[in-house]
Amino acid sequence: MQLLDQSIDDSVFTQHESEVRSYCRSWPTVFTRASGSHITDQTGRQFLDFFAGAGSLNYGHNNPVMKSALLDYIADDGITHGLDMATVAKGKFIEAFHGKILQPRRLDYKIQFPGPTGTNAVEAALKLARKVTGRESIISFTNAFHGMTLGSLSVTGNSMKRAGAGIPLVHATPMPFDNYFGGVVEDFQWFERVLDDSGSGLNRPAAVIVETVQGEGGINVARAEWLQALSELCQRRDILLIVDDVQMGCGRTGEFFSFEAAGIKPDIVTLSKSISGYGLPLALTLFRSDLDVWSPGEHNGTFRGNNPAFVTGATTIDHYWSDDALTRDVHAKGDRIHTRFSELCDTFSGISTRGRGMAQGLVFEEAAAAGKVSASAFGAGLLVETSGPSDEVVKLLPPLTISNEDLDRGLDILAESVKEVIG
Amino acid sequence: MQLLDQSIDDSVFTQHESEVRSYCRSWPTVFTRASGSHITDQTGRQFLDFFAGAGSLNYGHNNPVMKSALLDYIADDGITHGLDMATVAKGKFIEAFHGKILQPRRLDYKIQFPGPTGTNAVEAALKLARKVTGRESIISFTNAFHGMTLGSLSVTGNSMKRAGAGIPLVHATPMPFDNYFGGVVEDFQWFERVLDDSGSGLNRPAAVIVETVQGEGGINVARAEWLQALSELCQRRDILLIVDDVQMGCGRTGEFFSFEAAGIKPDIVTLSKSISGYGLPLALTLFRSDLDVWSPGEHNGTFRGNNPAFVTGATTIDHYWSDDALTRDVHAKGDRIHTRFSELCDTFSGISTRGRGMAQGLVFEEAAAAGKVSASAFGAGLLVETSGPSDEVVKLLPPLTISNEDLDRGLDILAESVKEVIG
Amino acid sequence: MQLLDQSIDDSVFTQHESEVRSYCRSWPTVFTRASGSHITDQTGRQFLDFFAGAGSLNYGHNNPVMKSALLDYIADDGITHGLDMATVAKGKFIEAFHGKILQPRRLDYKIQFPGPTGTNAVEAALKLARKVTGRESIISFTNAFHGMTLGSLSVTGNSMKRAGAGIPLVHATPMPFDNYFGGVVEDFQWFERVLDDSGSGLNRPAAVIVETVQGEGGINVARAEWLQALSELCQRRDILLIVDDVQMGCGRTGEFFSFEAAGIKPDIVTLSKSISGYGLPLALTLFRSDLDVWSPGEHNGTFRGNNPAFVTGATTIDHYWSDDALTRDVHAKGDRIHTRFSELCDTFSGISTRGRGMAQGLVFEEAAAAGKVSASAFGAGLLVETSGPSDEVVKLLPPLTISNEDLDRGLDILAESVKEVIG
Amino acid sequence: MQLLDQSIDDSVFTQHESEVRSYCRSWPTVFTRASGSHITDQTGRQFLDFFAGAGSLNYGHNNPVMKSALLDYIADDGITHGLDMATVAKGKFIEAFHGKILQPRRLDYKIQFPGPTGTNAVEAALKLARKVTGRESIISFTNAFHGMTLGSLSVTGNSMKRAGAGIPLVHATPMPFDNYFGGVVEDFQWFERVLDDSGSGLNRPAAVIVETVQGEGGINVARAEWLQALSELCQRRDILLIVDDVQMGCGRTGEFFSFEAAGIKPDIVTLSKSISGYGLPLALTLFRSDLDVWSPGEHNGTFRGNNPAFVTGATTIDHYWSDDALTRDVHAKGDRIHTRFSELCDTFSGISTRGRGMAQGLVFEEAAAAGKVSASAFGAGLLVETSGPSDEVVKLLPPLTISNEDLDRGLDILAESVKEVIG
Repeated sequence: MQLLDQSIDDSVFTQHESEVRSYCRSWPTVFTRASGSHITDQTGRQFLDFFAGAGSLNYGHNNPVMKSALLDYIADDGITHGLDMATVAKGKFIEAFHGKILQPRRLDYKIQFPGPTGTNAVEAALKLARKVTGRESIISFTNAFHGMTLGSLSVTGNSMKRAGAGIPLVHATPMPFDNYFGGVVEDFQWFERVLDDSGSGLNRPAAVIVETVQGEGGINVARAEWLQALSELCQRRDILLIVDDVQMGCGRTGEFFSFEAAGIKPDIVTLSKSISGYGLPLALTLFRSDLDVWSPGEHNGTFRGNNPAFVTGATTIDHYWSDDALTRDVHAKGDRIHTRFSELCDTFSGISTRGRGMAQGLVFEEAAAAGKVSASAFGAGLLVETSGPSDEVVKLLPPLTISNEDLDRGLDILAESVKEVIG
Repeated sequence: MQLLDQSIDDSVFTQHESEVRSYCRSWPTVFTRASGSHITDQTGRQFLDFFAGAGSLNYGHNNPVMKSALLDYIADDGITHGLDMATVAKGKFIEAFHGKILQPRRLDYKIQFPGPTGTNAVEAALKLARKVTGRESIISFTNAFHGMTLGSLSVTGNSMKRAGAGIPLVHATPMPFDNYFGGVVEDFQWFERVLDDSGSGLNRPAAVIVETVQGEGGINVARAEWLQALSELCQRRDILLIVDDVQMGCGRTGEFFSFEAAGIKPDIVTLSKSISGYGLPLALTLFRSDLDVWSPGEHNGTFRGNNPAFVTGATTIDHYWSDDALTRDVHAKGDRIHTRFSELCDTFSGISTRGRGMAQGLVFEEAAAAGKVSASAFGAGLLVETSGPSDEVVKLLPPLTISNEDLDRGLDILAESVKEVIG
Repeated sequence: MQLLDQSIDDSVFTQHESEVRSYCRSWPTVFTRASGSHITDQTGRQFLDFFAGAGSLNYGHNNPVMKSALLDYIADDGITHGLDMATVAKGKFIEAFHGKILQPRRLDYKIQFPGPTGTNAVEAALKLARKVTGRESIISFTNAFHGMTLGSLSVTGNSMKRAGAGIPLVHATPMPFDNYFGGVVEDFQWFERVLDDSGSGLNRPAAVIVETVQGEGGINVARAEWLQALSELCQRRDILLIVDDVQMGCGRTGEFFSFEAAGIKPDIVTLSKSISGYGLPLALTLFRSDLDVWSPGEHNGTFRGNNPAFVTGATTIDHYWSDDALTRDVHAKGDRIHTRFSELCDTFSGISTRGRGMAQGLVFEEAAAAGKVSASAFGAGLLVETSGPSDEVVKLLPPLTISNEDLDRGLDILAESVKEVIG
Repeated sequence: MQLLDQSIDDSVFTQHESEVRSYCRSWPTVFTRASGSHITDQTGRQFLDFFAGAGSLNYGHNNPVMKSALLDYIADDGITHGLDMATVAKGKFIEAFHGKILQPRRLDYKIQFPGPTGTNAVEAALKLARKVTGRESIISFTNAFHGMTLGSLSVTGNSMKRAGAGIPLVHATPMPFDNYFGGVVEDFQWFERVLDDSGSGLNRPAAVIVETVQGEGGINVARAEWLQALSELCQRRDILLIVDDVQMGCGRTGEFFSFEAAGIKPDIVTLSKSISGYGLPLALTLFRSDLDVWSPGEHNGTFRGNNPAFVTGATTIDHYWSDDALTRDVHAKGDRIHTRFSELCDTFSGISTRGRGMAQGLVFEEAAAAGKVSASAFGAGLLVETSGPSDEVVKLLPPLTISNEDLDRGLDILAESVKEVIG
């Protein structure tokens, strides 16, 4: 019998897998196949997926363009595992990434392939920033999320996840993210003041790490002017600026990099999630070429050379990033979502909306309502997750390639769920 | 033109990739395809691969059994990226792993899927050990290698890699690995003494983390009795024992877990590298079920659910671990290598050998000779890497599935290279 | 020849003492005797002392009341060095301190005698707060000064002094002291917000440590309402409040404890400097009796029992703190200084004034002017030091017992110096 | 009524002082006066003092030579509190210390006066070592004791005291003190090996801190050849050697510095306890003049200039260290103690002895016996303390100036107590 036609009992997971499992609790079914914006469970039920692998499936599930390239490569015995050996697949990816992503944007970045996870890209970024500057301290922002390994966790805000470390997390200081005080406090007032003041007690930072839109933090959007001011502040004070674009990069906000709209050029950038275009593990740490002070092998990792991901990644870039069609499309769909969300906010009290491009959030004054809306949507055939410090935000990350019909259908379901929960 | 028939210029890597790249410097060519124990470059030259993805390709490159299952799964639109959602592919992997690996060995472990890299599995292990015990300190061993993220790096010995952190690495204390003093000092003399002595200044450890054979450290083999004594020491003193089986697990030393031969049952085990069987990123942290104190989502990661790796992993277990044929085969081939190495040691002065199963090392008194042997072997069509604190060890990790003919041919090349360098 | 009639060449200090010496550079002479508000150098020149041992000589140099008790005690072979053995001198001190200081103020504090320095009292306070709460993080304030040993230094603001540690100072986060933004930001806005927000990234603190008036920080005065709000915030959130009263306690601001005016009761209080009343080393850590979780000897130190200091300390309390005369006197003299400083500010531009009781500062817009004023005053026979992150504040700490004539004379000298420097 | 004729009730201490008090529990009485080797309680009972302020009263209680100088100085209104201002008293101390201690021993040390406690001297030493080398890690030894502030505590062995920190103590690694394995392991085998091995995981240390005889650790004596080897090891490897001579300096082992007998010259030395000669708080950090990289005021402290202690300290040096009479006397009395202790060991089983000069220990196999002997001796009129990780050592630190009669009488009492407890 074909693998995908076999049936799995839920007890397989509850008995043998750790209690750490999470999403499977919100969506209690066993999934089998997926395509585009749809995912199917073993009972044959189909769901619309507005979650998209937490931003890893920007081009939908099993996108046929990349699928075809992937099948060919595997069938042809292309190298699968290559560490950091030079391979044709890796070379093609670098050519595509350099030629179609970096060069047109005049970004003079060296490319590092750390282990194929976002947290590994962040760890490499933090290590490099400390090595280059000789300083130890990193500035992070309230409600930041950068990963679960010790270095990344120390710049992550969530207290439950921080407690998981089992040791005090140090060498990082949080600063208020944009709009943290609802606009009543001048941007960077506190940050600039403690930097200016030699008696402030703040260790001089090696780097600032920031997400332009905080996904896990609750779709908190930094304004372009705030990002510009941050970038200028870092330049003035010789602090490196790291943009963690793991979730918001790869077109999620429209442009390939989420920081493009602000017109800034970070010193270091991390990418992962959708960079392979197919949901395969891959991560990149990019940095100004003059910062490339690594010794050979100083940061390594077994799965740096996940060649199938290079193949799908290069194909993705060629197919989607040779012109600006996708960018325009994302902006249009983002507006579509925003319009519908605004209507909901006008209709119901206790909710508000925020977002950029196709990362959009519906914020519930009563935090628990968000989870109820998500559960209700699941019942109606829609996957959508919550985020924010109190899980008070329904967080929309649909595939960028979703059809307008599917988008509308999902938004209809969501509207119904909102009505049901708080109407 | 097919991807794999295209040509890549070396400048793609030297100009655009970070100086951190490493293996591509030892093996300066561009690889394309691979199969079994062979890997081919774009000039069509074929190499015998005694490196096997640093232990990630125990079943050879693109093993046809797993390849077939993988192609079917992808073609059939099986879910690629699933976070920790329940999927059929994941369920089949758990069933296979539980039924054919854990149960027959009477190992009552819960399975955690951290991010799909070894270092992530180690980070999860360290966090859990600290959370369970409420202690912060970890005992590691001289010349240990556990990964590059901050938590794992703090228990790694290599000073160059440690310096990459840019901050002091703390909360870990090294102890002498087995035979560190050439047998003249009683095992655990120092460790037991400082544990016994309330005035020793050693912070009471949460856990000990150990490799049964240190791969990166230079193929340093811990004796069974040393591992048993370590295990008993940990039990007596309520310290958790973590075996990092990322490189030595999955049959590398014969048995599935490298600690089986010693008859011990660690509290926590990490697996990665060859666990997918195909070189695809996957990692597991296993622990005694009573240690499963994780809260849902307390440790997470985007690529936890690399479903293609579940498919190949389950297939690997079914195919290779339903009986003990592979184990016996590995022991036989390990003996074969050992015999040839012993002959070399008898023939030439300044070399010695050590190893277990199919992890075997040739140790050069003059450290630089190891690198020369590796370079010479590459010239003769054999990939083999060096390890050890001074890169003084030629480290053999051929695919477990290599044919005796290929094994002999590779050993012949190696013998020639040794003769050339130090003969 | 009598010791004090001998002459010392300056080269004794420049050749044999470390470059770390500091005050002797501002006041380049060799002092011999001192009495009340006057100090004499070996050339016979007399200086008026508005520095008073940086707040250690609140009752003047060699106050005859304590001097007499001290001479009697020494002559009578009273115990000099007693560690924490019970002695009559210690008993009398505790009786006086409990009966005349704590009891009338309804402060139910246990008394700990750590090593006889302010920094040791702070270290004991931090250790106890961490031990009681099981948390590691401490909140300090911008421009705080708490001492030079590693624990105290980590909650001290000054970047030059912090750099002296040679290791990253962690486990502490600075918050804005009162009026840090000139009144445009609501008190504790940032602090409360990050405490409220489980995603802020702030480790939940064990304690807050605060000076009511920051002496080294530049005579920064916390308003009573700010201190009250801080105290309430700590109570609401189960965070311990430590008031470091090393410099501002012992009547410097009028009342015995500097926090009395705000009507708050800190959980832990540190005292040192003027607590012996005679400039002899002594320090106390006071805490709510229910926080007394110390094990015997868990914090110790050789000079905890500096019995001559107990003798002068008990005498001081009996003599000066049996009624409120001194308090009223300090307020009156504080007003006198403030009036004169306000006149100066009206007369000259570029200066402002702030202070409480007999801790008063003259703040210079052009930082360097403060040092020039201090130097000029020294030339005219007045010792007065500077403080603040840029040494921009002339800091007045005259003996509380100074006569009005001497006070006026010193203020006249200071006015002349100000005129000379910025007039 | 004279202060010393007043009576103090024990409840003063039990009700108002913290539970942290320690010695007063072993010696439950209230002391009043003391002179030479004798100390008297308020009931008039006299005790022979073989404890001597834990080594702070090497010249006995209230030595008349220093007492006279001290009374004169106070009566004459000599400066009491001087921070680091130049004073005649300080100048005389430096002249004496330089001329009679440093110069004859050809020790080219700069003198730093940190806060007047041993722990402060250690903190300054550690900071300087880190600042000079740019490294963070310190090597300490098993059963070391260096103080209770955070930096010193991190290099202290005692687990109960370490736990008092409330945070993980890091940046220090313990190594085995001399004879830690009873002679069966080569000296520095482990230390040298991990320094040699670039893969050992040991952070390269800034400094080693060592006591030549560990007092608190149980009178553990380092052999001269061990200290020489340590010194050479440090020189060879560019690691600074800090000798903490707080307890064993000032003649306790015969020579002024305890390291003289080994013929080594440490890079940094700490002194405190008996340096004032009278039990008054004072501490020194000495270092090679080329290491004097301190900035002015980079390490400071309120009671650095405890001028009465300079007066007694200078007098002590002039009186006791102008020739080698005291040194010879200490050796002779040390031999006397050792002879008596050896006789005890020959007479009773379960005890052994060790020590140097007038720091001598009687070690009980059954740890509890040591405490019983100490209690019995107290009952018979002798103060003697216990030390060691299990308080298994009766630790003798009589005044160096004790008469032979008193010494014999005390040793008789001790012999009786030993007989009573284990006879």
